[in-house]
Parts: sequence; C-alpha cells; structure tokens
Amino acid sequence: MNKIKAGIINVTGYAGVELARILWQHPDVELVSVTGRSAAGKKLGEVFPHLAVTGLTITAELEGKIDVAFSAMAHKASAEGIVPLLNKGIRVVDISADFRLKEAAWYPLWYDFDHPAPELLKKAIFGLPELHRALIKNADLVANPGCYPTSAILALAPLVQLGLVEPDLIVDSKSGVSGAGRTLTLPTHFSEASDNVRAYGLGGHRHLPEIQQELTLLDATKSVSVTFVPHVVPMTRGIESTCYAKVKPGKLSGGKEELDKIYYDFYRDEPYTKVVQQPPESKHTLGSNLCLVYPAINQKTGRVVVISCIDNLVKGAAGQAVQNMNIMFGLPETSGLEALPLYP
Amino acid sequence: MNKIKAGIINVTGYAGVELARILWQHPDVELVSVTGRSAAGKKLGEVFPHLAVTGLTITAELEGKIDVAFSAMAHKASAEGIVPLLNKGIRVVDISADFRLKEAAWYPLWYDFDHPAPELLKKAIFGLPELHRALIKNADLVANPGCYPTSAILALAPLVQLGLVEPDLIVDSKSGVSGAGRTLTLPTHFSEASDNVRAYGLGGHRHLPEIQQELTLLDATKSVSVTFVPHVVPMTRGIESTCYAKVKPGKLSGGKEELDKIYYDFYRDEPYTKVVQQPPESKHTLGSNLCLVYPAINQKTGRVVVISCIDNLVKGAAGQAVQNMNIMFGLPETSGLEALPLYP
Amino acid sequence: MNKIKAGIINVTGYAGVELARILWQHPDVELVSVTGRSAAGKKLGEVFPHLAVTGLTITAELEGKIDVAFSAMAHKASAEGIVPLLNKGIRVVDISADFRLKEAAWYPLWYDFDHPAPELLKKAIFGLPELHRALIKNADLVANPGCYPTSAILALAPLVQLGLVEPDLIVDSKSGVSGAGRTLTLPTHFSEASDNVRAYGLGGHRHLPEIQQELTLLDATKSVSVTFVPHVVPMTRGIESTCYAKVKPGKLSGGKEELDKIYYDFYRDEPYTKVVQQPPESKHTLGSNLCLVYPAINQKTGRVVVISCIDNLVKGAAGQAVQNMNIMFGLPETSGLEALPLYP
Amino acid sequence: MNKIKAGIINVTGYAGVELARILWQHPDVELVSVTGRSAAGKKLGEVFPHLAVTGLTITAELEGKIDVAFSAMAHKASAEGIVPLLNKGIRVVDISADFRLKEAAWYPLWYDFDHPAPELLKKAIFGLPELHRALIKNADLVANPGCYPTSAILALAPLVQLGLVEPDLIVDSKSGVSGAGRTLTLPTHFSEASDNVRAYGLGGHRHLPEIQQELTLLDATKSVSVTFVPHVVPMTRGIESTCYAKVKPGKLSGGKEELDKIYYDFYRDEPYTKVVQQPPESKHTLGSNLCLVYPAINQKTGRVVVISCIDNLVKGAAGQAVQNMNIMFGLPETSGLEALPLYP
Repeated sequence: MNKIKAGIINVTGYAGVELARILWQHPDVELVSVTGRSAAGKKLGEVFPHLAVTGLTITAELEGKIDVAFSAMAHKASAEGIVPLLNKGIRVVDISADFRLKEAAWYPLWYDFDHPAPELLKKAIFGLPELHRALIKNADLVANPGCYPTSAILALAPLVQLGLVEPDLIVDSKSGVSGAGRTLTLPTHFSEASDNVRAYGLGGHRHLPEIQQELTLLDATKSVSVTFVPHVVPMTRGIESTCYAKVKPGKLSGGKEELDKIYYDFYRDEPYTKVVQQPPESKHTLGSNLCLVYPAINQKTGRVVVISCIDNLVKGAAGQAVQNMNIMFGLPETSGLEALPLYP
Repeated sequence: MNKIKAGIINVTGYAGVELARILWQHPDVELVSVTGRSAAGKKLGEVFPHLAVTGLTITAELEGKIDVAFSAMAHKASAEGIVPLLNKGIRVVDISADFRLKEAAWYPLWYDFDHPAPELLKKAIFGLPELHRALIKNADLVANPGCYPTSAILALAPLVQLGLVEPDLIVDSKSGVSGAGRTLTLPTHFSEASDNVRAYGLGGHRHLPEIQQELTLLDATKSVSVTFVPHVVPMTRGIESTCYAKVKPGKLSGGKEELDKIYYDFYRDEPYTKVVQQPPESKHTLGSNLCLVYPAINQKTGRVVVISCIDNLVKGAAGQAVQNMNIMFGLPETSGLEALPLYP
Repeated sequence: MNKIKAGIINVTGYAGVELARILWQHPDVELVSVTGRSAAGKKLGEVFPHLAVTGLTITAELEGKIDVAFSAMAHKASAEGIVPLLNKGIRVVDISADFRLKEAAWYPLWYDFDHPAPELLKKAIFGLPELHRALIKNADLVANPGCYPTSAILALAPLVQLGLVEPDLIVDSKSGVSGAGRTLTLPTHFSEASDNVRAYGLGGHRHLPEIQQELTLLDATKSVSVTFVPHVVPMTRGIESTCYAKVKPGKLSGGKEELDKIYYDFYRDEPYTKVVQQPPESKHTLGSNLCLVYPAINQKTGRVVVISCIDNLVKGAAGQAVQNMNIMFGLPETSGLEALPLYP
Repeated sequence: MNKIKAGIINVTGYAGVELARILWQHPDVELVSVTGRSAAGKKLGEVFPHLAVTGLTITAELEGKIDVAFSAMAHKASAEGIVPLLNKGIRVVDISADFRLKEAAWYPLWYDFDHPAPELLKKAIFGLPELHRALIKNADLVANPGCYPTSAILALAPLVQLGLVEPDLIVDSKSGVSGAGRTLTLPTHFSEASDNVRAYGLGGHRHLPEIQQELTLLDATKSVSVTFVPHVVPMTRGIESTCYAKVKPGKLSGGKEELDKIYYDFYRDEPYTKVVQQPPESKHTLGSNLCLVYPAINQKTGRVVVISCIDNLVKGAAGQAVQNMNIMFGLPETSGLEALPLYP
C-alpha cells in the first residue's frame, strides 16, 4: 500500500513536535513536510535535537503532495489557513479550537475573533473517536478536541448519555505545564511553576464551551451545566480530571458494581479508553494514547466521582489527531500509536 | 519574661522537625527536649543537618521541666502518651488526629482503634484559631487540625456559617508529597511521585470526618455533607483546595462584590488567613503560616468556588501548632511565625 | 522467522520493567515469562498498570522454552541464578554487575561477596557494543554495563584509545533518581530528593572499577586513573556525565576541529552513539537508546571536556541489553529500539 | 539605635525580591524604597504576593533618605546607576558583576561593554566576608560575588592559599534554575528545564574570571588555572559545586584528618561557612545563608575533591549582600540572617 503523505503546519509548538515524533514512526505514513514561521529554513533537528534523525527541513509553507495536513497553528490563523487546503482536496485534522464549536457566535465570545468560515463549522467533525467514530471516517475536516475536554468528556459521557446524574457537573482538572505550550510566559517559567499548584480560568476557561457542547449533545434534557476549574501542577505532561456529579433519584441503586458495568460496556471496544479498577495516575499514561477512566460512587451522599487520566500531548492532542487520521484513511485505528507508557 | 519551655515528642517526622525549626527560632520559647524512638541518643543535627546549630540531642522520653509539649506521634500512640503529660500539668498541642474528633465512636471507624481517653475528647479544643480562639486560650489540650481540614474549613466556613450555600459541599485538594510524611512508601518514592498526579482516599479519607464535624458545627441546619477527594502532586510542600458549593436560592444576589465583603469581614482581624484578590498559588505560602483564600461566584450556574492555599507543614501542622501555643500562653499570636514566604 | 523467546528474571525493578516494556514491543521477540519473588502470582498489569496490555503473569521461576534470559536480579543472586541457565543452553544478558569485572578478586572488594563462578568472568563479554560488538555476537553471557560506566566510557573512549590525554581522568556524573532503583530508601523519598543535588560515593562508587577496567583496556600505557563522583538530581530518568582530561603535550593542536573529527570517526557507524554539535541535554535522550556525546577543548588551559547524555534505564540498562540481544541473535541492531526520545 | 535605611534598585528580579524579603525582616533595617522600571507605580504585593504585607510601592527611582542601596540591576546599567549614589554619600552593595573584576579590560571581553567607572574597580571590595571582611568594613562600594564564585571560591580557598594542590583546578557546578533569573527564556521554560540536566558556558562562563581572580589572589605562585562547567538541574534554588584538584607532591600526607583540620581551622569563626562531616546536599541550605563545605581526599590517586553547597539566592546573592551590609554598618554579622534552612 502506498503510504499516506502527511504535513504538519506549525511544527514548532509542543503539539506540532509531538505530531512529528508520532508520524515519523508511523508505519503507514510518510511525513513529507513540516512548516514553521520563525524557524523556516532550519533543520527540524536543529530546533528539536530529538528529531535530528528525520532529516526534515522546516519550510514556510507546506511542500510536496499531501494527503492529510495537521494544523497546529494558533486559533484564527488555523481557520484561515485550513480553508485553502480543503479547497485543494487535502483532508485536515485541526489541532486548534477553530472548528470545535458548532456555533459561530461562540468564537467572538470565547476566542475574540469572528469566525472566517462559519459554514464549515457544521461540516467539521469533533474528533473524539469514542463518540463520533462513524462521522470521522468520512470527514474532510476533523476538529481535534482540546486536552481538558478529552479527559472531561470521556469521564462523564456514560453518566450523561444514560441520564444517571443531575446535569449540574463539576470538572476539576490538573494539568502538566506543557499544556500551556512552548510560548514563554511567567507562569510557565520554571522557578514559578515548580513547587506550585495554580488554579486559573475561574472566569471561564476556553475549553468550557467545548465540554458543555459535547455533553449537551449526549444529554436528553439538553440542560447540562458544567463548572470547570483547571489547575497547573509541576510536571511536564499529563492531565488528571476529577469529575463530580449527583446521582438522580432512583438511579444507580446497584452502586459501584452497576456503575462499573455501565462504564465497561460503554468503552468495551475502545482501543484507548480503558476503565480501570484502581484510581489511575497521570503517569500511567505517559507518552501513550491511553485514557484511563475510574468511576466511584458514594451511595450515602449520592455522589459519583469519576477520575480520568491522559497524556495531554498524546490522547490530549497529537495522538488523538493521529487516531483520527487512522480512522479517516481506513487504517487500523491503533497504527503508529502502539507505544506503551513510559514508566517510571 | 521567662521563656516558655517546650518539648517535642517524636521530632523525627516532618511535622516534628518543622516544629523544631520554628520553636528554635521562637523569641519567647526555649526548646528544651526532643524525643524520637529509633533516633534516641543521636544529635538532632546528625539526623537533620539543617538543625545542627541547635545542639540538641534526641532522647527517648521528654527530659527537664516542660511547660508545653507538642506531640507529633502517630495516632493512638499520641493519645496514650498525652494522658500522663496532662496529669503532670503539662499543656499539650497534639499534632496527631487523636483528639480532633468529638465522637469516640468515630475512632474505631476511621482510625481502627478504640480511643483510650474518650473523656478527654470533649475537653480537647480543635485548634483552628479562626474558629475557636477563645476556647484555645484556656485549653490544656489542643487538637491541632489536619492539613487538608485546615485548608477546607477555612475556605468554606463563611459560606456555611452564614447559610449561603446548599450544604452539599465538594472539596478537591492537591497536596505536596511531604503531607504523606517521612515514612517510606512506594507512592512517595521519587520516581513514582514525580511527573504524576494521583487521587486517593476515594473510599473516605480520614480527614473527611474532621471537615464534616467542623462545618456541621457552623451550619444551623446541621446537614452538611462533604465529598472530599485529596490528590498528591509532585511538589514537596503546599496544599491547594478548590471547594465547590451551590448558592441557596435568593442568596448572594450581590455577586462577587457581596461575596468578597463577606469573606473580608469574616477574616478581617486574622493574622494569617488572608482573603486575596487573585486566585492564590500554593507557592505563595511556602514556609509561612499563611492561609490565602479566594472566593469566586458564577451567577449563571449558581456555583461558588473557593480556593485556599497553605503550606501543609506550617499552617497545616507545625506553624498552626505554634499559633495555638501562642494563644494558650498569652503571647502575641504571631510570635515566632513572622517569616515571609520563600519565593521563588 | 521464528520469534526469539525471551524471559526476564526479576521484572519488578525499574530495569526489569523497562525490559518488559521494550521486549513486549519488539517485533522479533516473544516475551514468554517474567519472574519476581514477592509479586509471584500477580498479573504484571496489577503491579505495573502501564503493562496491563501484556496479560503476563509474574511467576517465581522462568517458565516455558526460553532462548534468552535477561537477569535483573541483585548482584550475587544474579551470578548464582545465571549458571544453571547457561548450563541449559540459554543465552543470558545480565543487567547486574556480576560479570562485568574481569578480576574475581574485585568482587569481595567492591561488592562484598566471593564470586560463585569466577571461571565465567573471562567468558562473559562486557556488553558495550561500541567497543565489543564482535565478541558480543557469539557470546553466551553478556554483562550489560552499568549506567554511569556507559556514559563515562563512551565519552572518554576515543581520547584514551588514541592516547591524546593524560590518563588522569575525572568523571562528574548527574543521574536521575530512578538509577537508585525501586527499593525504598530515604534519599529516594520524594521530599528528600526533590529540590536537591546530592553527591555520593566519594569513598569509591561501585561503578568506578568498571570504568577503570574498560578505559585501561583501551589505554596503551595501562595507567588510567579515574576520579568518579556521581550525583543525584531531581528528575526521574537521565544521566549527564561531564568528563575532564588534560591534553598530552603536542596532541590535539588542531583544536575543536580535530577533536570533532576524531569523535565523528570513532562513532561514525554507531546507531545509538551520536556526536552532536551542541552540548547535549539529558532530556534529549528520554525513553530512547541514544547516547549523545559532545567534546570540547580549551587550548589555553589544555583541557578537554566531554559531555555525554543517556537515558539511564534505556541505553544505561534495558535498551542496551536489548541492543546486545539483537547482536547476539543476528537481528538488526536497532530492532525494537527505534523509539525517538519523548519531548518535552 | 536608629535603623539603617535601605533601598533596593530593581526589586523585580529574583535577587531583588529576595533582598526585599530579607531586609523587611531585618531587625536593624528599615526598607524605605524599592525601584523597578516596568513595574513602577504598582504595589510590591501586586507583583509579588508574598510581599503584600510590606505595603511598599515600586517607584521608578529611589525615594527618601537612604543609607545603603542594593543594586540588583543588570550589568552596565548597574555601574552607571551606582556612581551618582556614591557621589551622594550612599554606600552601595552591588549585586551585579560590574565591580567584581579588578581589570577594566576584562569587561569588554567578558561582558561586552566598556566600563564606565574604571577608577572605582580598585576601590570596590569583593564582598566575600570569609576572605575580605576587614576591607568590607570600611568599603563604600561592595561588589557582591556571583553565586557560582561564592560556592567555588569557598570550596577551594584553603587549598590554594596553603599551596597544597596543583593550581590546575576544576569546578563542576550544578545550579537550580532561579540562578538564570526571572527573565523568560526557552531553557528556563518549565517543560524544557524539568527532567533535564544541561551543561552550558563551555566556551567560558562569565563567572570564570571572578573565580580565577580571587583564587589567584590567594595563590603564592599566581598561576591558577580554572576549568569551570556550570550545569542547570531541575530545582528552583541551590548550588552544589564539586571541585577537583591534584595534591602537590609531599603535601597532605596526613590524609583526610589533616585535610579536615585545615578546613576547620580556615573557617573556624565563620558564622555561615561550615565544614561538615558528610557530603552536604543543596537542600540543606534552602532559604538560609549557609555555605556547607566538605573536603575529601584519595591518597592513591592524589586527588582532592571538595564539595560545597549554598542557596544561590541567599549566600549566593541577597543573603551575602545583607551579610556585607551588616559588616559595613557594624551590625552583628548574622543580623537578619538567622533563618534556619527550610526542610524538607
């Protein structure tokens, strides 16, 4: 079989460079072009020594024939850059948030720009394979989910879809610092981020509408309300989300056993979302495409707590993007994504 | 004035050694005796090089005349060891959990032992100065609060006491690894704890009844229910607690402004609990006795989120113990506790 | 081709579990048996969640037909356990130090035991492919080098073999904490190891005779003297060694250019030891089998400084063991070891 | 006694803010003015929450009557800013490198600028109290040593002054990331610096001439040659320097005992430089003004290894600056610097 020819737009951020690492090792893909503005003209290995072996050179624009482009551009720029690619017949996985929200009106509210291609919002598929696999298969444009939304939606989807809990949900997420990207900021300066836990986005984090939208789609009553507080903790990779919900009267009377069965059934055939028997640790996913989910219930208080862990740069970004690509191109869904977590 | 003569029982844990550091530098205290079983006979500076300057020797039992003893023993052993001290007229601050819970029946449930001195449970004062200052003043036995409860109770007390929120509360805490103590365990092994977030105690952490008890005392309806999930994050010191509550109908219509005023008023004269204008970071308390509190409200969802940060070994243990001692002995409450946080 | 059947003795340490991760993903190997004393009877995934997918069960002894055994036992036990395997015709890669030193007399001196199989010391091959590839090919017993020696010897070998520097060498190494293994100790307790640099082994670290032996073999004058000071720094994986030597009179007058050429030539065809153009960082090797080497020279002071970086658990242990196995069994040397470093 | 009135120029870097923390708590000092360009007009507590209690406002220029100014400006700017202060009779402790080197010609070479006040280089005193206490006493301008030089010079001074070792010295230093300051850079970005060891300055670090100058002053033969390689390790504070020297023929035949005696005698009356009996760890100095020194000798190889540890922001910057101020103003040398290290 001919290899799929892939390009990465803006390879120089952490999602971009992780895409390069995964795609380079992908048995069914040829990584033919990587772009980056400030670094154009440099060897990829000059900027990222761990990728020296690729021999690739960073260019200003995608070069050569491409079957699929991964856009790791900033929001707004990504939407603008993707339209011409689609017009050329190149299928696109967008790592940015530009096609994740269905409502064009949400972009000025949450991202401070008017969407340049609102007609594409309906066509774009939200690339969470666990929920939208069938649609991803034929999509020309997949909006790769955010890292926090991936962990939150996968933790809560079974509860919401089956109407087991009150729709007033709480997501408390803890992320490694790489989630904030490679751009220099004071909060990501080592001496500030080390030995520190920092809550942020209390006024409304941009990933909130994404979580809200996807859970609402699953909710029969369309009344989901999410309180989402992200935190940064002193590690490079990983997200742990602890999600809280109130059991609806009369539901889940079977307790932990019933809850487990529901989760195992929901994710039975998933290659990457795994229901586990102990609270998972973020480290158990390091470098892998796994999402580990653990549901718990306290029948006295009527509370369900669901914990999920992912590597924010893999299942939370580049790995999930490749999983989407595999589905789009009819490859085995796990192709290029078999790496076991690195431990310790 | 004569200095107060203090002793530390079981100086060799992290709370004990932090007590030694603070008491050694306390202008009104003479640290006369420190004990430790396995290390008895050794110089304190041999086990803890940073305390070499004290010249103290670790003994098996408290020696010399003591006005106040700090017990940093494990639970059960602490209760047993404290009784004879009280009988000798020595006032005691107990760092263990042995006198925190009012109900003797809770000890077999939560700590797996029958309380050896249940009659003292009523006499012991829960040493959270912000709530019980007047009683601490005359107490012979102060039960120093746990680290998580300190952060959780101080975050939620104003809301509960004023009946502003539904009594169904959620506390999501993130702690540095030192909270697990100096005893060697696999989860506190560096290679396991680094680059990791780990939720635990989902079946019910021992600090839960303590939080529940104190908030119930404040709650007019006596119906408080707390869901508490502690997490360990890869840093040595610090706790950040993010607490979630639902506003009662008709309450807090004044929004953030009203909420702030309530918190500022509640903690107006407190030397260590400070209401801040930005979400606090755990690092902002490092090495100090501060508790930083930040309340937020989302009027659309009717959710209050309160964040609090402490240094788990200072305000969460040794510092608060010294604050209690200061109150007990009529010293300025801040004596020996003036150190500003270490930053960065 | 039939897959090679491999077994791991003592899978429960960090080297053992890393071997399991690599061998499980190796295209030419079937991992058929893993042993561990205390964990015998448990599923591998129960002890190490990241390996749940393997479905393997830990047994007390190797089971099934095995072509090659990797021993990750402690020293002494390893030597004792390996002899019967060799007698059965199983080829062995020993991760312990038991066959690294050529002189039986060194074992009581450095490891406090009398070697149980001194006759095998001459037959065992020191498994540093860069120096002993031809001998490894036909070896039945390969002594996998220590992590520090791998980094030190690869940094200094070209200088010593070509007689360019005085034989009085200094190796200053910085290691991640995982190098100390999974056994619980106070120095590897998170709260002790974090925010800390700790030199140790000043009286003579056990890896010193190994470094000394291999460099002496390369030195025409047989007069090598090594000063080796290892340090532990607060990270999980990685070793950086900074090595210092004095240029011999009349040598290296061509400066950096000459030095670079010597190093590039020496390691020209090596798949994993790469001479780089900037001082390497330990992170650039994370999870990979790479050893990055950078030589520098100051012609005014006559000093050569060579820096090398490895992942202590891959090129410093399990990865190199698999590289040795590949050579022993005539497989492509890079088989199963192609993973690019994980970054960031 | 009247308190000494102190000002800090450029309080917004890590050395500046650490000065503010120490001076604010100093019993004999009133911190009256703190400056900072970009933050002028803001409350100090707005930029640095841990200093909110000071109530100070950052101004563009020093305000009020000042007895002593601490300059934490960048090099060149510091020299330019200090001259007018001296002319006004204000005594100055300069944290920058601008008056550390005695030779004006070294500034263009090492710092890329022509020194604006070369005549002051001879008057300025290198503020290492252990070597220059008597001169500091009467100095109007003290050049506070660099962090690496403090650790290196204190480790090697006894050996060099007594002519015990060959003057060909090696200093291998490991520093926490805060040594690189608060300015944002890629190598100090959390995701790059975590889990990493990075050597740098191989072409000649700016602290080298400072080490060389001070050791040469101590050396009777004036022939000191230093090879200095600094490394950054993933912790916020602390420096560990491992220094290597060759024993001169006929010297130190008394071995470790003789060496210890020499070091104890050399630092006998020092309040902060302490000779210790076990290799010190950087963590043992956290937040304190201590320098811990440990000398070792291998009589077979003729090598001396000396290890020293400091907190780079205290003894390596702000603490030493205050120690110098104490000497200059006839205060007890330990005033305001009594804080024991924070542990763990």
